[in-house]
Amino acid sequence: MRIAFIGAGRLATNLAPALKVAGVQVMEVWSKTQASAEALAARVGCNASWGQVERATQDAEMYIISVKDTALPEVIRHLHEGRENALFAHTAGSLPLSLFRDAGHERGAVFYPLQTFSKERAVDFGAVHFFLETSREEDFELLKSLAERLTTPAQIHHSTSATRRWLHLAAVFACNFGNHCCTVADDLLAEASVDFRVLLPLMDEMVAKLHQLPPREAQTGPAARRDENVMGMQRAMLTDRPDLQQLYTLLSNSIQQYDQL
Amino acid sequence: MRIAFIGAGRLATNLAPALKVAGVQVMEVWSKTQASAEALAARVGCNASWGQVERATQDAEMYIISVKDTALPEVIRHLHEGRENALFAHTAGSLPLSLFRDAGHERGAVFYPLQTFSKERAVDFGAVHFFLETSREEDFELLKSLAERLTTPAQIHHSTSATRRWLHLAAVFACNFGNHCCTVADDLLAEASVDFRVLLPLMDEMVAKLHQLPPREAQTGPAARRDENVMGMQRAMLTDRPDLQQLYTLLSNSIQQYDQL
Repeated sequence: MRIAFIGAGRLATNLAPALKVAGVQVMEVWSKTQASAEALAARVGCNASWGQVERATQDAEMYIISVKDTALPEVIRHLHEGRENALFAHTAGSLPLSLFRDAGHERGAVFYPLQTFSKERAVDFGAVHFFLETSREEDFELLKSLAERLTTPAQIHHSTSATRRWLHLAAVFACNFGNHCCTVADDLLAEASVDFRVLLPLMDEMVAKLHQLPPREAQTGPAARRDENVMGMQRAMLTDRPDLQQLYTLLSNSIQQYDQL
Repeated sequence: MRIAFIGAGRLATNLAPALKVAGVQVMEVWSKTQASAEALAARVGCNASWGQVERATQDAEMYIISVKDTALPEVIRHLHEGRENALFAHTAGSLPLSLFRDAGHERGAVFYPLQTFSKERAVDFGAVHFFLETSREEDFELLKSLAERLTTPAQIHHSTSATRRWLHLAAVFACNFGNHCCTVADDLLAEASVDFRVLLPLMDEMVAKLHQLPPREAQTGPAARRDENVMGMQRAMLTDRPDLQQLYTLLSNSIQQYDQL
């Protein structure tokens, strides 16, 4: 199956080379700018195209569209002409499969790897769960065989658009908000001229624990043990940072609410 | 050096056996209740005492006091008599060294391992940073040699009480609040009947990234890329959960504020 990537962002930068290594024929990378199209195409060893999305190859059998969520409907519409029979798959957690039919394209699919991607790190797809959905039943096997090049069958799931939205929202809380809590920690450590890296063993242990205990049972800290002394003192330390003080209060209350359920 | 543990909670349950394995003479574990004193003493292979804290051994050279923060001043006061020359060390992140002198005990110390402890998991102390402080300069080497039984010299730090408070607050954000974000995620996945464990590769990658990039640079997600469409949709999904909706809004705003700094 000949595949073209539409978009050269963080997800495509991880996925396209991984598919290539797994023996899949990635024939082209398109991006809005020449620089990013050529950068990823060079890593994959394939053709690059850029500018209007209509300029992408018409020869691919499958287009993996990994662009900004807001741009997606427009991109599908422009890509459709001349590629009416190709399989289009987007990679977004929160966008429905119905986007494709709404934009006039019949063979739509979702190929959603539940992971956080950076250009600086190569993700190990062997540990990634994939959530797949297709407009046509017969295309599901195609998508599945693609995912099987990268990960184990147990980590490949069929998922409706409704389920995928909850998955994405849960991932935002766990990973995006979890990472942001570390950004705040980094900022607070600067107050004491301490390097953030002293917290790494703590974060390693937090996640190791999650492999063993449900997060609610793994919860520790002043809020979980209802240590009002420490909580009062910590709130007072944030007097000059009302934004962080509000976060502290809200998150502590939330910990205690869940604890009562 | 003969050591007694005052308290048999999560921290003591990890620290006492680790010290014993490292060749330190842990002679007794005291706890308020007989059951928990005996449980930990059995694991360490030492004497157990319980009830009033005055009933703890008077023969130890060092007492590691690991009790609830609120109970600490009272415990020091009651322990002091008959143990005037012993070294007392507490293990709390947010309590000052001055507690000991305030309670009438001269040789005070803080032995703070920056880690999250559960009774269900044995922590690897070789990866833990220790923050130490002593009332008397000559006791610092004693404390340091104790920490050196467990971890590498590069992970042993002198820290004032003021610095330690910031360390603890940062750890609350990174680890306690980070873990709570996973509790919320677990709850949201229940809406879609999905097992929390599908998020584990994501959490593994989030933390692996922190070893490589500062958290602010590792930030991904709808708030970081200012995807108002997805954010609006995700807020709407939380309409029935105003507590989580408020958290979502506050954390997303905070991500965007840090991004502008």
